[in-house]
Amino acid sequence: MAVELADVERAAVRIAPFVDHTPVLRSRVLDAWLGAECFVKAEHLQRGGAFKFRGATNAVLSLSDEDARRGVAAHSSGNHAAALARAARARGIPAYVVMPKATTARKRTAVERLGAEITWCDDSLDARREALQGVLTRTGAVEIHPFDDERVIAGAGTAALELVAAVARLDVIVVPVGGGGLCSGTSIAAPGCRIIGAAPVDRRATVADGLRTGCSERTSAILRAHDVEFVTVAESEIEDARCSVWELARLMVEPSAAIAFGATRDAGLAGARVGIISSGGNVAPREPRVRRLSL
Amino acid sequence: MAVELADVERAAVRIAPFVDHTPVLRSRVLDAWLGAECFVKAEHLQRGGAFKFRGATNAVLSLSDEDARRGVAAHSSGNHAAALARAARARGIPAYVVMPKATTARKRTAVERLGAEITWCDDSLDARREALQGVLTRTGAVEIHPFDDERVIAGAGTAALELVAAVARLDVIVVPVGGGGLCSGTSIAAPGCRIIGAAPVDRRATVADGLRTGCSERTSAILRAHDVEFVTVAESEIEDARCSVWELARLMVEPSAAIAFGATRDAGLAGARVGIISSGGNVAPREPRVRRLSL
Repeated sequence: MAVELADVERAAVRIAPFVDHTPVLRSRVLDAWLGAECFVKAEHLQRGGAFKFRGATNAVLSLSDEDARRGVAAHSSGNHAAALARAARARGIPAYVVMPKATTARKRTAVERLGAEITWCDDSLDARREALQGVLTRTGAVEIHPFDDERVIAGAGTAALELVAAVARLDVIVVPVGGGGLCSGTSIAAPGCRIIGAAPVDRRATVADGLRTGCSERTSAILRAHDVEFVTVAESEIEDARCSVWELARLMVEPSAAIAFGATRDAGLAGARVGIISSGGNVAPREPRVRRLSL
Repeated sequence: MAVELADVERAAVRIAPFVDHTPVLRSRVLDAWLGAECFVKAEHLQRGGAFKFRGATNAVLSLSDEDARRGVAAHSSGNHAAALARAARARGIPAYVVMPKATTARKRTAVERLGAEITWCDDSLDARREALQGVLTRTGAVEIHPFDDERVIAGAGTAALELVAAVARLDVIVVPVGGGGLCSGTSIAAPGCRIIGAAPVDRRATVADGLRTGCSERTSAILRAHDVEFVTVAESEIEDARCSVWELARLMVEPSAAIAFGATRDAGLAGARVGIISSGGNVAPREPRVRRLSL
């Protein structure tokens, strides 16, 4: 069963009490830099700092009471782990997260604070899958995949749904692509709109750590069906975009979000009305230089 | 002639074509940290990165054509210099700015790019005043003081006017106090509301470089007349607040803005609906730690 606009609309109603309606931000200096009229859907200000909470919440709330009681599980070292833990807490059910030992203390603490049970594993994808299978067998929990899941895709699409409701006559929406969940949901939520997916040149080694994964058959099929175009962005341009967005627009985006700004600059969208989904802000800000001027 | 609510309302209409209507941001983690329901008026996203552009624009647009033709002038090493240059450019008139030689390259470049003529001087207040007097004599320009000016105060008040229009039933508005322009304007714009001014303990040495000045007779009188309360915030708490606002709410505020968050935490506002004017974001962000996880 394919995900349809009505599924995204139902997801929006379902998750509304738990998820923040993030603002759409404008910045004239950013417009000048990008050469287009840009409307930034600030998902880096979403609860948990990323759009991931939308999909996880929709998936958790879609479960029957019987399924929900057993809890939910996923392997993730990124924003999905925290999003799932947060969504499970909102419903009052257990969350089981498999995390590689190399996960940063910052992310570990976030997931622990949200009350999830963590199972540690080695870094390889095989080790992660095996550990998750053990957790599923032991607990009977329901696996919630970070993107290869129709409920997650519908939930992710609610960001674009809010964007097109807030901004009339968008010509194009630019959105980061990793596993393709956000991009799939966006293409379904904004059917009349040109969609550009922003991807790193080499997803195995990119600084955009939220995008170090490929699309599944499901998300690939959705992106094809909606004529999504792709722009690849070089590592130097991702970093350049992140610095510019911080400096010019004072928006604290992570590289996986900055890539959409880089793609906008590359895509030749002069004069267009561009929606940009600023997908996450989970980056550790370093101390700014303290300026002690003598006045 | 005292500044009244009607002056702020007129200023809002006058500056509307030039000034951004900044968003009011919410953050649940920030609310939890501050122990109150907080509505952040994001003036750090204002054009030029600070509320200063509101007052400077109102002052410049209030001039008669004859006065305007001669240009405007001020001494400033901070956000007022850039704000005045930007406002003058919007009206197509000259701006003359006296800056101490110790001004950072970043600020110098900003003012130069906006087309202002810069006169360099030594750091002392006397040297700045003397240099400005020379400029005024030579050019016949109109001095626009950064805060001791009714047009500037009325313009600064438009931020609070937008805030109370956007958020019903605010119990209190917390606003940084240096020269008192923003705080004066806020107290005039939100007459039914309790106003708390957040000030550094030692304004001569504070990290909040936008607040290294004292109130004038004019602004002191306005603050007294509107029963503005004051909370002083220690340096360590200003820095702590800045870090927390960056980390928790992902808002890139400068120390002079962070102080209002610190004061909110100190003021014992449990359960209140609190408006916070996040007055500026002109801080040089350092590179964030690049996290290359193996996934």
